[in-house]
Amino acid sequence: MKNNALHIVGVGPGAPDLLTLRAARLIGQAQAIAYFTKRGKKGHARTIAESFISPHTKELRLEYPLTTEIPFTDPHYKQTLATFYDHSAQQLAQCLSAGERLVLLSEGDPFLYGSCLYVFDRLLPRHAIEVTPGVSAMSASWSSALIPITHGDDVLSVLPGTLPLSELCYQLGQCDAAVIMKIGQNLEKICTALQQTQTLSRAHYIEYATQSQQRILPLAKEIPKTAPYFSLIFIPGRQKERRENLNP
Amino acid sequence: MKNNALHIVGVGPGAPDLLTLRAARLIGQAQAIAYFTKRGKKGHARTIAESFISPHTKELRLEYPLTTEIPFTDPHYKQTLATFYDHSAQQLAQCLSAGERLVLLSEGDPFLYGSCLYVFDRLLPRHAIEVTPGVSAMSASWSSALIPITHGDDVLSVLPGTLPLSELCYQLGQCDAAVIMKIGQNLEKICTALQQTQTLSRAHYIEYATQSQQRILPLAKEIPKTAPYFSLIFIPGRQKERRENLNP
Repeated sequence: MKNNALHIVGVGPGAPDLLTLRAARLIGQAQAIAYFTKRGKKGHARTIAESFISPHTKELRLEYPLTTEIPFTDPHYKQTLATFYDHSAQQLAQCLSAGERLVLLSEGDPFLYGSCLYVFDRLLPRHAIEVTPGVSAMSASWSSALIPITHGDDVLSVLPGTLPLSELCYQLGQCDAAVIMKIGQNLEKICTALQQTQTLSRAHYIEYATQSQQRILPLAKEIPKTAPYFSLIFIPGRQKERRENLNP
Repeated sequence: MKNNALHIVGVGPGAPDLLTLRAARLIGQAQAIAYFTKRGKKGHARTIAESFISPHTKELRLEYPLTTEIPFTDPHYKQTLATFYDHSAQQLAQCLSAGERLVLLSEGDPFLYGSCLYVFDRLLPRHAIEVTPGVSAMSASWSSALIPITHGDDVLSVLPGTLPLSELCYQLGQCDAAVIMKIGQNLEKICTALQQTQTLSRAHYIEYATQSQQRILPLAKEIPKTAPYFSLIFIPGRQKERRENLNP
């Protein structure tokens, strides 16, 4: 493990034994660990990694500003977050300049929509960075549900639920297999898009994949009222071929 | 670990320390491990998992039939593979009926285009199966290259290189971020599609990600002559936004 390098470490989807051996080692050896969290919370990534953190490791909480009262579309929302990521990057840079073995924890796989990207972009020009990939939330979801996502030459579309309704409909209307991330406040819009594109009957909702509270719902049977941070929706490809014959 | 259940275990992209803790434990506890391999080879998944396999563990090699002399489009090719997967599933079912703790190794993440899918489909109706997700080859690739694949509301398209040229062009022509898997004999066709859609300048080729022979090439500078099993191409999203400003 390098000093003076930022180690961005994916901690996987939720179950502590779905960390990689490398992630567990790097976290155990760190002098300081950093993680994004909401105010007053323990932090999702830190909770997953908890059993691997040494008692004497310094912790750097990167607390999101309270932005819920500002609409996403307001330029002030973007500016507030940009200032937050600037400040977070500065704090990490100070640790690195002090020569500390520093790990930034990231849920799932860091480079797939992770918040760590915004400090990565800021630090890369002047700091050494190493990234440890993790098991993604989507891999955990289709594995836990025992539903293969792609066969043969299926195309997989990974869609953020933050997309506008029209764009979600366009993408879902032509997809083979799809995963929709970032459900949260977008759940109603996403279900509308699934209905409009007649893909609701093929869609599975899963929350807390690989964790004790795991719950899987075929969306055609039940639409949950709210979706927690650990949730996503997926549509497997090739159901037709799979049912009709078992040829590869 | 359950007896009488088939444990399909993702061993990740190549580096042995990118196995999950769960995968290492299940492999170590197995009475029998199975894996797909070409004749005369050690098997990719087995090579990755080698240091975790106990010396007394029984090994079941599932050897692909020699199909290179049959064109992919020939019905005989499909039939030869179907017969092979039928036979493989029967061999696994025999182990399960004997009550053995059985692990089927799978490169990367099992349900993302894995060969294990074809035995999974055959065994699911009559056998208990558990799937351990793994770090995918694509996560390993963008992490090793230090190139984030998606920011904000980028859509990620995962494309098999086996798609026809016209379909590759259609998908690449409209993508934000893309990953192209299954390069091998499709390399020339894929590069033609990248050129025709003017995405070649944004495309990165990576082989043996996380392994000692790892090599990363911007495709605009050099196109490799051949592509090994462990290779893929990816196009990161949001390069424009990333360069122009660092707002989230």
